[in-house]
Amino acid sequence: MFRYKITIEYDGTEFFGWQLQGCLPTIQLAVENALLSFYGREVRIFGSGRTDKGVHALGQVAHFNLEKEYPPYKICEALNHFLKPLPISIVSAEITDNNFHSRFSAVKRSYIYKVLNRPSPPSLDKNRVWHVVKPLNLDKMQEASHYLLGKHDFTSFCSTDCQAKSKIRTLDEITITKNHDAFEFFLESRSFLHNQVRIIVGSLVKVGKGEWEVDMIKEALEKKNRAAAGPTAPAHGLYFYKVDF
Amino acid sequence: MFRYKITIEYDGTEFFGWQLQGCLPTIQLAVENALLSFYGREVRIFGSGRTDKGVHALGQVAHFNLEKEYPPYKICEALNHFLKPLPISIVSAEITDNNFHSRFSAVKRSYIYKVLNRPSPPSLDKNRVWHVVKPLNLDKMQEASHYLLGKHDFTSFCSTDCQAKSKIRTLDEITITKNHDAFEFFLESRSFLHNQVRIIVGSLVKVGKGEWEVDMIKEALEKKNRAAAGPTAPAHGLYFYKVDF
Repeated sequence: MFRYKITIEYDGTEFFGWQLQGCLPTIQLAVENALLSFYGREVRIFGSGRTDKGVHALGQVAHFNLEKEYPPYKICEALNHFLKPLPISIVSAEITDNNFHSRFSAVKRSYIYKVLNRPSPPSLDKNRVWHVVKPLNLDKMQEASHYLLGKHDFTSFCSTDCQAKSKIRTLDEITITKNHDAFEFFLESRSFLHNQVRIIVGSLVKVGKGEWEVDMIKEALEKKNRAAAGPTAPAHGLYFYKVDF
Repeated sequence: MFRYKITIEYDGTEFFGWQLQGCLPTIQLAVENALLSFYGREVRIFGSGRTDKGVHALGQVAHFNLEKEYPPYKICEALNHFLKPLPISIVSAEITDNNFHSRFSAVKRSYIYKVLNRPSPPSLDKNRVWHVVKPLNLDKMQEASHYLLGKHDFTSFCSTDCQAKSKIRTLDEITITKNHDAFEFFLESRSFLHNQVRIIVGSLVKVGKGEWEVDMIKEALEKKNRAAAGPTAPAHGLYFYKVDF
């Protein structure tokens, strides 16, 4: 048995997220179908993390087992061939040891969230950025983001239907950069709670707009109550960026 | 009479270019229709340059006249409102003097051409980059590009159905940058011939792939014959970037 690790890039706009959901179009289903077309047998693939409907990925990682050995470039070529009409691209493949697990071997995950901050709507970046009209204050958002760094109970910053037993996570990095009217949020952690990145961004944008004081982020964290944090930023600004093993 | 200058950003994928062509979907038609919906009367708009089917713009400029005076932000808001379902965005508007002409007052135009250079196809950048699989040599393309700088007869580097009387143009700038697997070509000139940017990029990519020697660009220029230059790079990698007045 050979275990393959693949890295996947996708435009999540037209998909119901990563995870299989019957016959709904999901990324996992599309990749499994491509693998079936190539290999002739059904093969289950395992992703590093679920992404929600509309969320994109630059570096989702998945693994699967095949009984045959193929040169990794063949796996890329074949899957990309069968994925062709879809905005899903296998950017790399390798054979890995049998203990590797795309989810459990991951030691760090990172996400990027993109905001377009200007009055006029996006055109080329439609469905790829969150369009925020009200001017954002970078300094205030950066200041507020520091409260979130490190180990905290992130109950306020996760979806109320989050399944995780413990809401304690360690946020290793959060940086916000600005290039003209484009803001980029970069977040890194061993793992994230459901909607954690989107709720953090939604809350920081409240600060950036001046609707919240900087220390309301600290208060929201302390309240351990979803209602204390800001809105969930839309899915289409979010990119699953990278997984480290 | 008030003359308005607008700057337009668009995803050209689903359009038959800038210029009116009966009832085919073009950018000019879409903007004129939005103006009709807002103003209640047909108004002709004039662009700084035509873009072909599939070509994008970050800074196309157009002008038009209205009898009424509106604050410029109202023009933006109203046009964007009526353009809403389309990937066309009016990024700025201003009232300009009546001698201003988006085409004839332009003193410099610039274009960006994007190439994705890797084996796997684009996903998020589908229809926004030219996908080139064979590895490109940046140094050789840069070296070759220097032959094109300055004033030349660009007959070899323009479409055979180009209408311009003189094929002499001055290329003020051509720079090529690389960021991982993304190459960006930046070209600046008072004006360009039909397909000039795309044929230049198509030819330089020949050099980058190692299929042409660097000095074949010089030879192509000297031959003053379209057949001596490389292929026309696809429309979907091209962006009309900026117009200076």
